Amino acid sequence: MNLAPLESFSADALEGVLHLPARLSLHHGGSLTQPLLGWRLAGRADAPIVVALGGISAHRRVFDLQQPREGWWHEVVGPAHSLDTERVRVLGIDYLGGSGQSSAPVADGVFPSLSSYDQAQALCQLLDHLKIARLRAIVGASYGGMVALAFAERFPTRVEKLIVISAADRAHPMATAWRSVQRRIVRFAHSCGRAPEGLELARALAMATYRSPDEFALRFGDQARQSDGRFVFPVEDYLFARGRDYAARYRPESFLCLSESIDLHAVDASRIATPTDLVAVREDQLVPVADMRALALKLPCARLLELSSPHGHDAFLKEAAALKPVFSSCYGVHES
Amino acid sequence: MNLAPLESFSADALEGVLHLPARLSLHHGGSLTQPLLGWRLAGRADAPIVVALGGISAHRRVFDLQQPREGWWHEVVGPAHSLDTERVRVLGIDYLGGSGQSSAPVADGVFPSLSSYDQAQALCQLLDHLKIARLRAIVGASYGGMVALAFAERFPTRVEKLIVISAADRAHPMATAWRSVQRRIVRFAHSCGRAPEGLELARALAMATYRSPDEFALRFGDQARQSDGRFVFPVEDYLFARGRDYAARYRPESFLCLSESIDLHAVDASRIATPTDLVAVREDQLVPVADMRALALKLPCARLLELSSPHGHDAFLKEAAALKPVFSSCYGVHES
Repeated sequence: MNLAPLESFSADALEGVLHLPARLSLHHGGSLTQPLLGWRLAGRADAPIVVALGGISAHRRVFDLQQPREGWWHEVVGPAHSLDTERVRVLGIDYLGGSGQSSAPVADGVFPSLSSYDQAQALCQLLDHLKIARLRAIVGASYGGMVALAFAERFPTRVEKLIVISAADRAHPMATAWRSVQRRIVRFAHSCGRAPEGLELARALAMATYRSPDEFALRFGDQARQSDGRFVFPVEDYLFARGRDYAARYRPESFLCLSESIDLHAVDASRIATPTDLVAVREDQLVPVADMRALALKLPCARLLELSSPHGHDAFLKEAAALKPVFSSCYGVHES
Repeated sequence: MNLAPLESFSADALEGVLHLPARLSLHHGGSLTQPLLGWRLAGRADAPIVVALGGISAHRRVFDLQQPREGWWHEVVGPAHSLDTERVRVLGIDYLGGSGQSSAPVADGVFPSLSSYDQAQALCQLLDHLKIARLRAIVGASYGGMVALAFAERFPTRVEKLIVISAADRAHPMATAWRSVQRRIVRFAHSCGRAPEGLELARALAMATYRSPDEFALRFGDQARQSDGRFVFPVEDYLFARGRDYAARYRPESFLCLSESIDLHAVDASRIATPTDLVAVREDQLVPVADMRALALKLPCARLLELSSPHGHDAFLKEAAALKPVFSSCYGVHES
């Protein structure tokens, strides 16, 4: 493999920031000039390559042997994990527009709207650079599932199989409602010169949509506490602790960009012939099971697995055991 | 009836602002000094009296023959309506803490936390003033259902019957999550000197929780439009139009007070012996049917009706035909 200067090598991972071709034309108009794409390849070197893509907060570090908690999918992906990196080599990326090392908006700068097709195009250019003719699979959850579908529609010869968890061919209007409010909060706070506080609020709201009412009922039934002369509810403490953590690590401009990209996602499922395993979660408030069932009927070659999980839309991060059999199709035929 | 000076009379309604006893001690501590309570009594003068209480945006004007759209429950309550004001006389109030003529917080003032028990206590004092020994029923939906339950626990001799729609003995933690975010948005905007804009955002979020995903899927499936260089989604236009309307009519301080009061609501259902008809809506995102079923089992004398409605938590405002048989128990025995 011909490594570009920015690329690095450690005992278990190849990592780099790729200069994409000089101009990336975007699906919704406009283009990115000299865009960058952060990537990371880890797992057994001679194993089939699987791309793993998560929600808008995910990044190229899918799992990390040295610092396990830095991997966004560390409960599910790794050696002897549900997606076993002794049997597949995992490629991760920083999303265009996100808070990683890929090209992204900056404060008060102008940045075009990004489509899931644009992420797919950048990923395909990365495959060209890494000389990966064909992926064994793309495993995508949430926004990552949208990008997986967009990739298979545009580049059908470059991937054998999709595993799409909690993502459909377009966003549900109720989920768009919640995300629209989140974006308006961030923009309002930005107009007050306090964008990070807006991101805290938006993330707190997002957390409520990621989990299920049943989980919250079990965890947060206690009495409110009093603080500074007002009541604070247990669930409120939780949401805003998560919101603060998030605002410390992510950029408001990136949140706006990728949140919008979810709502702009719209692929033509009838044109996605790649064999696809769909995983729907009954308690998911953002991607109703009905939308996943409808997608399964539109895709020419799909199977649908329905799970129950109190973690709702976040089930892909938590339900390692339930997902393990789903990933078996990623391994070599002689190994499965 | 001995009308206080502030009271007025029109062809079809008595209306007034009552000076409550000099000091109202509050459930969560503190008190209100010389509180006021706005009220309105309308419907056939010799008919049994029914109190009608709605969500935190409701007020004393339940229905209005002169200006029908000013009545917050005009689709359901009125002459020959589902709750027929030719057969009952309807008493409405402005909630303490709200945006009507009752005592409420003012900008930058200190106002104590209000309980549903406090609303019940004020209502009981109004009954004393109006010399109403015993109500035929309290019909309460959303926050109004909480107040109805609190009233029956505290003043069991003053009401014969409860009809409680989409309200339980306490708030669900997921609903508290959404309301906590709404309150934080308003407080954040207040700290930026822009509280009304925070109220717009909070109300937009609230609207998404009031309706069902199915309703939004039917209404808002169209493409996003472009405006000022960014995409605006159909559901976003809807939510923020509603948010602006709301912010023009309601005070941020009142919203904070009553939103918190919902989350502080906690009654002892086992002590509510008043016969109670519960109405649960399967699509309600704020008050899950499971919570209404659990309440029905805790109440000594309850029946539960489960409805389906795309209007979700707002079904009580819209499902006039489905609610009509529920209200029949409010009429005189010889009339029903």
